[in-house]
Amino acid sequence: MDTVSTAKCFGGTQGTYRIDSAATGTAMRFAVFVPPGEGPFPVLWFLAGLTCTEDNFTQKAGAQRIAAELGLILVAPDTSPRGEGVANDEAYDMGQGAGFYLDATQAPWAQHFRMYSHIVDELLGVIGANFPADMSRQGISGHSMGGHGALTLALRNPDRFRSVSAFAPIVAPNQVPWGINALGKYLGEDRAAWRRHDAVALIEDGARVSELLVDQGDADPWLIDQLKPELLVDACAAAAVPLTLRWQPGYEHGYFFVQSFIEDHLRWHAARLV
Amino acid sequence: MDTVSTAKCFGGTQGTYRIDSAATGTAMRFAVFVPPGEGPFPVLWFLAGLTCTEDNFTQKAGAQRIAAELGLILVAPDTSPRGEGVANDEAYDMGQGAGFYLDATQAPWAQHFRMYSHIVDELLGVIGANFPADMSRQGISGHSMGGHGALTLALRNPDRFRSVSAFAPIVAPNQVPWGINALGKYLGEDRAAWRRHDAVALIEDGARVSELLVDQGDADPWLIDQLKPELLVDACAAAAVPLTLRWQPGYEHGYFFVQSFIEDHLRWHAARLV
Repeated sequence: MDTVSTAKCFGGTQGTYRIDSAATGTAMRFAVFVPPGEGPFPVLWFLAGLTCTEDNFTQKAGAQRIAAELGLILVAPDTSPRGEGVANDEAYDMGQGAGFYLDATQAPWAQHFRMYSHIVDELLGVIGANFPADMSRQGISGHSMGGHGALTLALRNPDRFRSVSAFAPIVAPNQVPWGINALGKYLGEDRAAWRRHDAVALIEDGARVSELLVDQGDADPWLIDQLKPELLVDACAAAAVPLTLRWQPGYEHGYFFVQSFIEDHLRWHAARLV
Repeated sequence: MDTVSTAKCFGGTQGTYRIDSAATGTAMRFAVFVPPGEGPFPVLWFLAGLTCTEDNFTQKAGAQRIAAELGLILVAPDTSPRGEGVANDEAYDMGQGAGFYLDATQAPWAQHFRMYSHIVDELLGVIGANFPADMSRQGISGHSMGGHGALTLALRNPDRFRSVSAFAPIVAPNQVPWGINALGKYLGEDRAAWRRHDAVALIEDGARVSELLVDQGDADPWLIDQLKPELLVDACAAAAVPLTLRWQPGYEHGYFFVQSFIEDHLRWHAARLV
């Protein structure tokens, strides 16, 4: 692991790091905040949305203040492999910056687009080995495409992630344009394979988490066509998964929304990662 | 005034706006946060550093949470005129993104680089006319080159700015490479003219503010060569200007430093803008 940069922040250390990823076959960057004190600390993963890097959450969410107080390590991965030798798409919602937290099976994406393995398998070991982290206490959150990532990774790994929340998540990629486009290209036309990367479908197929916290702005321009939280409400109700969906009146989709409620999410995770 | 974008944030409104500036002869953007409630609210100006736009403070400082609680309007101007028809320099510390909060007198800069007039004269009227602002209660702060801007604008306009603070400011541009380069090009070789854009020189020449708050990280890579807070300490001591200089151990220069102490600054201003 190489250190790209570090800076003191609220008494802790905010760093950006880089590994040669065996999962993606590229250099991958990620950001880690370590709170002040000795640790070991519980770990909260935060997955970002379309077009983002490891920087967006790290620079715009205002999470370090609260993580310093609560004693939480924050880990923010990138959203895709990157570089000249990596496949890409001109659209903002496909290719670099739009990895959708899955392992692609279709050409030309399968060679590098393996964000699921990068985060769930590879970074797990990197964080455990290099930071004062208690890997028995991990939670996960995310925003938009990263909310989709948080929900699906938690549903597929309930023993690993003891708490999960999301901001304005894509809850059912199989049913909305962003997801139909990306999953079709990354995974091919066999829609059965898509169901393992769709929170609503995973719940319908029997995956479970103990409870969910979701914040959603009612002025979010993606609400109707892409996010569809009502599908998560229905799936959770049918499966008896406790869902706290908080409608935030007047809020839109970006980090001005996320920062307004990040404190509630961090306290919610910290209470469940004791 | 045109509205570029707005988003709800901590119950208030974070917006980006644009005017056709008579001062600079260009379109100028600026960001304004209006807290929840009726107002009128006091106004805190925040001037950003080299390479920045109106976005850096707005997106990275985490100030809206506290401004919402305290009932402060935050105004973040851009740091220079911009555009294809505007003079520029390849260096990061001169030209676009590096206006130094002065009115240039030398070609090719004098045509557009009039950030002092833009902020002190022009935006004053724009903010007063378009937002629920009490213009009898204004404070000013800034970071790095913007700390220079905050100190010099306050020293030259003590009746307007009732409170002033800075993060890692350039306190004596006349004596450091960034300032000698920029002021020489913007103002020419007559160093007497530079003294009206140098906080230490202004204090030496009799300008006064009631008190100053400055935070400075002791791991700041620009500390020794460019910032030189000891010169401000000496000038304030000689002039009996009350200066609270807080050395922050281990902190560097960027917004991870600023966000760690922005709450103290906003509370300090709010207490003086009652």
